[in-house]
Amino acid sequence: MTEWFVRGKLTDSVPADDRGFQYGDGLFETLAIRGGQPRFWDLHYDRLHIGCERLGLPVPAERSLSSDLQRAVVASDIDIENATAKIIVTAGSGPRGYRRPDELRSVIRIGLYDSVLPGADAFREGVTVRLCQTRLAIQPQLAGIKSLNRLEQVLARREWRDPSIMEGLMLDTDDRLICGTMSNVFICSKDSIATPALSRCGVSGVMRRHIIASLARNGLHCDVRDIELDELYAADEIFLTNSQFGVLPVRRVGDEDSIVGAMTRNVMHIAAAAGVAECAL
Amino acid sequence: MTEWFVRGKLTDSVPADDRGFQYGDGLFETLAIRGGQPRFWDLHYDRLHIGCERLGLPVPAERSLSSDLQRAVVASDIDIENATAKIIVTAGSGPRGYRRPDELRSVIRIGLYDSVLPGADAFREGVTVRLCQTRLAIQPQLAGIKSLNRLEQVLARREWRDPSIMEGLMLDTDDRLICGTMSNVFICSKDSIATPALSRCGVSGVMRRHIIASLARNGLHCDVRDIELDELYAADEIFLTNSQFGVLPVRRVGDEDSIVGAMTRNVMHIAAAAGVAECAL
Repeated sequence: MTEWFVRGKLTDSVPADDRGFQYGDGLFETLAIRGGQPRFWDLHYDRLHIGCERLGLPVPAERSLSSDLQRAVVASDIDIENATAKIIVTAGSGPRGYRRPDELRSVIRIGLYDSVLPGADAFREGVTVRLCQTRLAIQPQLAGIKSLNRLEQVLARREWRDPSIMEGLMLDTDDRLICGTMSNVFICSKDSIATPALSRCGVSGVMRRHIIASLARNGLHCDVRDIELDELYAADEIFLTNSQFGVLPVRRVGDEDSIVGAMTRNVMHIAAAAGVAECAL
Repeated sequence: MTEWFVRGKLTDSVPADDRGFQYGDGLFETLAIRGGQPRFWDLHYDRLHIGCERLGLPVPAERSLSSDLQRAVVASDIDIENATAKIIVTAGSGPRGYRRPDELRSVIRIGLYDSVLPGADAFREGVTVRLCQTRLAIQPQLAGIKSLNRLEQVLARREWRDPSIMEGLMLDTDDRLICGTMSNVFICSKDSIATPALSRCGVSGVMRRHIIASLARNGLHCDVRDIELDELYAADEIFLTNSQFGVLPVRRVGDEDSIVGAMTRNVMHIAAAAGVAECAL
């Protein structure tokens, strides 16, 4: 079930001349709604803020956006104990052409979805991921933000249908490991934890940021740096993060087994204590 | 004025869950309608066909798409002597997530717009263009086709508001000249004509293809190859192509004057004789 709201009113359509539809001229956030409240609102708002500045879109006021979301959650028929909210900000309607209207009126739409989470065994035993052929292009102007231009992820997700494969990892066009199609990736080796830098491409996930901060608060440093593919295969442990599921251990990358070990368990433990109930085993 | 048709019926909206809106999961074509007929239909259909195959979308049957377009043109209130048609093909509606529905039902929408062309002086005296800071990312999987992921063009077009600047030229992230935000570019030096190869990024314009073929039929070879920025500034003459305006001479790139000379005139003459009336001076 899905419901869409614009300024608190239920709507199921978008004007055909909306620049989000015509050019992907916009951004989105996908939030976990837990117990009727958006989780990590500040982090989502912050990324949206950065994205709007990067794209030259008016930054929605935090209070007004937050109350729009709250209104949509309350008005929704979806089970808001565990739901997913998607906020889409576009450059609004305009005439044909890449040039935005001088008086830009961006539009905020809020979608509410039933929550779909992996089963308990995925959290306990880990998931299988694959390596995608589709590469992420190097485009610092769009790196880190969550724009509506997501064809690379769509193409990568097309590469497999096997339901036992949970996610596909993506490299950039220079062979660096970047992220999953819908998650970020972390590698653990000996006593160190690292996750790819996202200054050239990739989406800077809210859960990734939360985990890095939570680790730091627990005296654990996560290295944010370039990671080559070799390092992925050489890693002792691998885990994924995403705003909905939190932290998921990886037990297999393609044909290579990976260990679901103590470091990932510790990260999940820290995450569960820091508001990500999904990670409590 | 704009009108949108889906399967021959006037409509002004798109379902909020259309993957074209959610992820830019689709393609488009912008055709010139001249004398009530689409110009260079075969070339537009061919690019759309290639784009659908590249993105894994069902290829619309040529006859059915052509008759959809014809129906929309006939039903339209727009002056179809000189109009612009936009065909948008998306992956249709689907649940949340990058994964497309197993039973993919793509949707074709056709928009009709009044035609907006540069004045006669632009064709006679040439236009001013600038060099954009925004780069095109290298992504061979999306190169050449006209997908709905157009944020790079939107960002490039945001770089200027001066109405005397007609177009912005774009480099890729490796400093090669690629194309304009909404046009292709050709350079003439001594007796040779060249245009950038588009295997890494950029849109393979229908008018570009038509001009290359028309030149060949007139015994003139156009070199399709990598072009560095230096070559642009060193060129004797520069011109732009686009499906709506045909061929436009460039008289100035940033602060550097360029000559509107005999080679561009000859190309325009050949274009006018090959069905592009806009280029007849």
